[in-house]
Amino acid sequence: MAKLYSTSDDLGDTMSRWIGLLQVDPTVGDLTGNAARLEHLASLASSQGAHVAVTTELAISGYPPRDLLLQEEFISLAQKTASSLRVEIPVLVGTPILPQAKRQLPANGVVRAGSSGAHPSGEGNSHVVARKQLLPTYDVFDEARYFQPDNRSGIARTIANLNLGVTVCEDAWQTAGLTPSTYSADPIEHLAEWGRQGVLLDATVNLSASPYHADKLSSRIHVCRTAAAVLGHPFLLANQVGGNDDLLFDGNSLVAWPDGRVVVAPAWQEGVLMVDIDGAERCHWIPSQSPDALNIGSDALRHISADDDGREYDKDLLEDLTDAVVTGLSDYCRKSGINSIVLGLSGGIDSAVAACVAAAAVGPQNVTGIAMPSRHSSQHSIDDARHTAESLGLVFDTIEIDSFHASVEASIGGMLRDGHPVASENLQARLRGLIVMAHANAQGRMAIATGNKSEIAQGYCTLYGDMAGGYAPLGDLYKMQVYGLADVLNARAEQAGRTPPINASSRTKPPSAELAPDQKDEDSLPPYPTLDAILHCHIEEGLDADDIAAKGFERSQVVEVLTRLERSEHKRWQMSPAPRVSTRAFGQGWRRPLASRHDWRY
Amino acid sequence: MAKLYSTSDDLGDTMSRWIGLLQVDPTVGDLTGNAARLEHLASLASSQGAHVAVTTELAISGYPPRDLLLQEEFISLAQKTASSLRVEIPVLVGTPILPQAKRQLPANGVVRAGSSGAHPSGEGNSHVVARKQLLPTYDVFDEARYFQPDNRSGIARTIANLNLGVTVCEDAWQTAGLTPSTYSADPIEHLAEWGRQGVLLDATVNLSASPYHADKLSSRIHVCRTAAAVLGHPFLLANQVGGNDDLLFDGNSLVAWPDGRVVVAPAWQEGVLMVDIDGAERCHWIPSQSPDALNIGSDALRHISADDDGREYDKDLLEDLTDAVVTGLSDYCRKSGINSIVLGLSGGIDSAVAACVAAAAVGPQNVTGIAMPSRHSSQHSIDDARHTAESLGLVFDTIEIDSFHASVEASIGGMLRDGHPVASENLQARLRGLIVMAHANAQGRMAIATGNKSEIAQGYCTLYGDMAGGYAPLGDLYKMQVYGLADVLNARAEQAGRTPPINASSRTKPPSAELAPDQKDEDSLPPYPTLDAILHCHIEEGLDADDIAAKGFERSQVVEVLTRLERSEHKRWQMSPAPRVSTRAFGQGWRRPLASRHDWRY
Repeated sequence: MAKLYSTSDDLGDTMSRWIGLLQVDPTVGDLTGNAARLEHLASLASSQGAHVAVTTELAISGYPPRDLLLQEEFISLAQKTASSLRVEIPVLVGTPILPQAKRQLPANGVVRAGSSGAHPSGEGNSHVVARKQLLPTYDVFDEARYFQPDNRSGIARTIANLNLGVTVCEDAWQTAGLTPSTYSADPIEHLAEWGRQGVLLDATVNLSASPYHADKLSSRIHVCRTAAAVLGHPFLLANQVGGNDDLLFDGNSLVAWPDGRVVVAPAWQEGVLMVDIDGAERCHWIPSQSPDALNIGSDALRHISADDDGREYDKDLLEDLTDAVVTGLSDYCRKSGINSIVLGLSGGIDSAVAACVAAAAVGPQNVTGIAMPSRHSSQHSIDDARHTAESLGLVFDTIEIDSFHASVEASIGGMLRDGHPVASENLQARLRGLIVMAHANAQGRMAIATGNKSEIAQGYCTLYGDMAGGYAPLGDLYKMQVYGLADVLNARAEQAGRTPPINASSRTKPPSAELAPDQKDEDSLPPYPTLDAILHCHIEEGLDADDIAAKGFERSQVVEVLTRLERSEHKRWQMSPAPRVSTRAFGQGWRRPLASRHDWRY
Repeated sequence: MAKLYSTSDDLGDTMSRWIGLLQVDPTVGDLTGNAARLEHLASLASSQGAHVAVTTELAISGYPPRDLLLQEEFISLAQKTASSLRVEIPVLVGTPILPQAKRQLPANGVVRAGSSGAHPSGEGNSHVVARKQLLPTYDVFDEARYFQPDNRSGIARTIANLNLGVTVCEDAWQTAGLTPSTYSADPIEHLAEWGRQGVLLDATVNLSASPYHADKLSSRIHVCRTAAAVLGHPFLLANQVGGNDDLLFDGNSLVAWPDGRVVVAPAWQEGVLMVDIDGAERCHWIPSQSPDALNIGSDALRHISADDDGREYDKDLLEDLTDAVVTGLSDYCRKSGINSIVLGLSGGIDSAVAACVAAAAVGPQNVTGIAMPSRHSSQHSIDDARHTAESLGLVFDTIEIDSFHASVEASIGGMLRDGHPVASENLQARLRGLIVMAHANAQGRMAIATGNKSEIAQGYCTLYGDMAGGYAPLGDLYKMQVYGLADVLNARAEQAGRTPPINASSRTKPPSAELAPDQKDEDSLPPYPTLDAILHCHIEEGLDADDIAAKGFERSQVVEVLTRLERSEHKRWQMSPAPRVSTRAFGQGWRRPLASRHDWRY
């Protein structure tokens, strides 16, 4: 009598149990390109002996497809493309799936591509293997808007002689208790119940598009360990990698065994995590061979023992943040067809770090830095800007704005007179924005904005001025993190035998917008270490003024900071995408706040 | 034995059955101010003999409260404020309601304020009467993100001797089949089932925040008639009025009887619809007495007979659109603390109409129009701009931009040379934006952007240039609708004995951006009647290129229009709020599209 549950001892060498997790970097909406990437990764997996491969969530459409899901034709084409991938092994492919009835929404599901093995049961001759049950609708997620939830377990039977449980992202998170509110169902517990009823599975896979933030990996390890323990078999999670606007996906695909061992794939790289479900030590990584594949940072696997909670991996924060920010900009450019970048170089820390990130993202020869000194600019600022540009190998230009600043002021002196002095400061910032944009438009480059999260949180920035640009690479980094990135970027340059691009004086001088004589940021804001700490308490931890004051901050200062934060919400709404690297972006991150409930000022 | 179901015959004159629908214009987040408005309206209703009053959906917090709902303290305070309104009659108040269990979301519900009558059963000593069952999560709605759905009927028993069914907005729409997808529950059918089981209700009320778009009223009439027919008793809907950023609420509270008669309250006004549920002919309107209450358009009630589908009321489209757009801007300003407006006046139709709207919204003495002619501007444009400003009574200023246009061009000639010619055109638009913003910042005014939906849809506008400003009053009006508004605004001026503010030449000259010699919009775009028709087919009706071509448009032209529409998505994301007046705004309206899936250009 055939056994329902097989072990590697039964199978021998010819029937090893290898599963390839395809850690793909899809472009939203590019069905053809995404299919090609998946076929390439599947062929790598197949060539190294994988019997089955598993993609990430909605891999064929890219995550998040958002309003593309409102077009039935798009869903139909995505599903057909996913089902008919040209692959030599069975592949479980994440794709949107047409509604099962009229006036229903589509599903976020999984189809089986590849010819070998029997078709999954229960779906007629279709290839549908699973539909997502838990639809996250909080923070950056919005899935209840687009998808119908399912209430049945996903099981792929006899796929290359394996029986696999199939779950999609959030489905695995209820068991671990890490969702903001409770769902009424628990798909992992449901699969475990099938096991107790005698349906034996060899492993459960999870197709994920789990966004990055600092400290996320330890949560994901906890989720996979919990699922493996509940299920009593290996739990494999394939995670999307790369950037889509402000959403970053770190990859870090992983597998957990019921005994707590974990193997984690590299972050910020496209490739295949080859998993032998019977042996953690035999897992290995195959990088993508595509010339445009994301390939940032280390390609080493991380083997985590059962008594290690993985938090140490969250501690290389600045190295990881640097890779995250570079990935965000570089993927944004590739996916948008942008080959070159222009930015203003003030000589300050923000534009210096932004220039380094741009150079890493598109190559220094494709980056133009423009210094635009005014009557308020110091000579050291111009020197520092030049140093950064020259040591990186950027194209560098200097344009004095004083003459046309004066010319504009003369023309509109009447309206400025007796007016608020911020008008004149903003005028300079907007003249600079206008020059950067003129360059961008004339030369077909993308302008980037160089602001950081701390100043943006305080509205210490100018709409249509320094906020102008198509992407804000540092927009979710607090000021002190920008300094941290400067250290990482300088150290990396030194390691590579190049001149550190960021001068000590950019690191040590008091931050200044240089829009008025002897202006310092601290004239208007608390010192950045204090400001960052207060903002972190409120934005990331959700504390109110009283809670924050109880931590030892001066209450009046806390109230000032939170008031400025609220009053400048409308500005942030008009901000370009910024790679999300913190646990909480502003408010709900990418959701538009109401301006009309607040005082509205520029 | 007491009857379960009472009629007016039993009650006599002293026990008439008057319900006041409080059509309120709340400010999102302003709990104290909203409470004061509701108390004022309830006192008006009470003074005219109402025995019960009903507010709109989430009246105490204003709709949509969005991320305020993530703060438990806000919900707690809202619920307490709603329950303890100082009112002389029982009032059913829409409010967010604290979760019933840990790790649950709050409810979108109804509490009972006012001391008379017994407390509702089943809620201990709390005042909770109902929780919303159907949570719209499509288009501008996002309620699954914030709320826990309920599955129980809302019934308020013996409230001033009435037994009332209580529903919240979307709860009534499933029966009429007008939602984009099907819900698994039908609260109206559920209430009807209670009736069949012997629970007799005198009427059912619905607390709504149902956004405006042209043609919406006939849908709402259909919903209320269907509900009244299914329930067999009068169905009363109280709808929010006023603007919150891009969302407009038209009011038009209404009551439908099972025989199909309907009475509709005025649009764009705050007040009370007094309903005698036993006599349509006795219904009347009490305008709010608050000095800052919204009060635009006619205050006449509309009595609609059973054989009238109400579509004729959707036909006064241009008059209604004009009121909608004025409401949007005026409410945005009041709620944001903005007292004065500045805009560029080009002499074209868009800025002329925008100036009229601004003058109606905040008073002409609080509006500054600035003409900013360049080397490409015609004399008639300057004359037309002056005519509009003078006939409206605006403050008017003229600033030639040629000298600093030349000065900037001289400074950056190197980067413009051999570059894309759009850079120079954008430069002029951005210089104008810079001047308008300098005025706004110096004088504490809000700049408004004057673009229309047709040109914005084609990316025929400049980021940080003519798109600069805090609000875009015409941003959801197609170009030909802007001409329609011009006619309405001129006619209204004539009726009031004033000079029509928009010159015939603004009406008849070919539209031009005047950014290059002899430039006409038609050099780059199809004629506006054609462009508008193609855009309407795609945006409002969801047709693709083939469908539109099949209607008789040239296919290549359709593809060009749709391609420009898609490529300029990223620009619209950075646009200021525009009052939503069409059935569909761009894509999902206020949702951020991904830029990185498209070619990204300014």
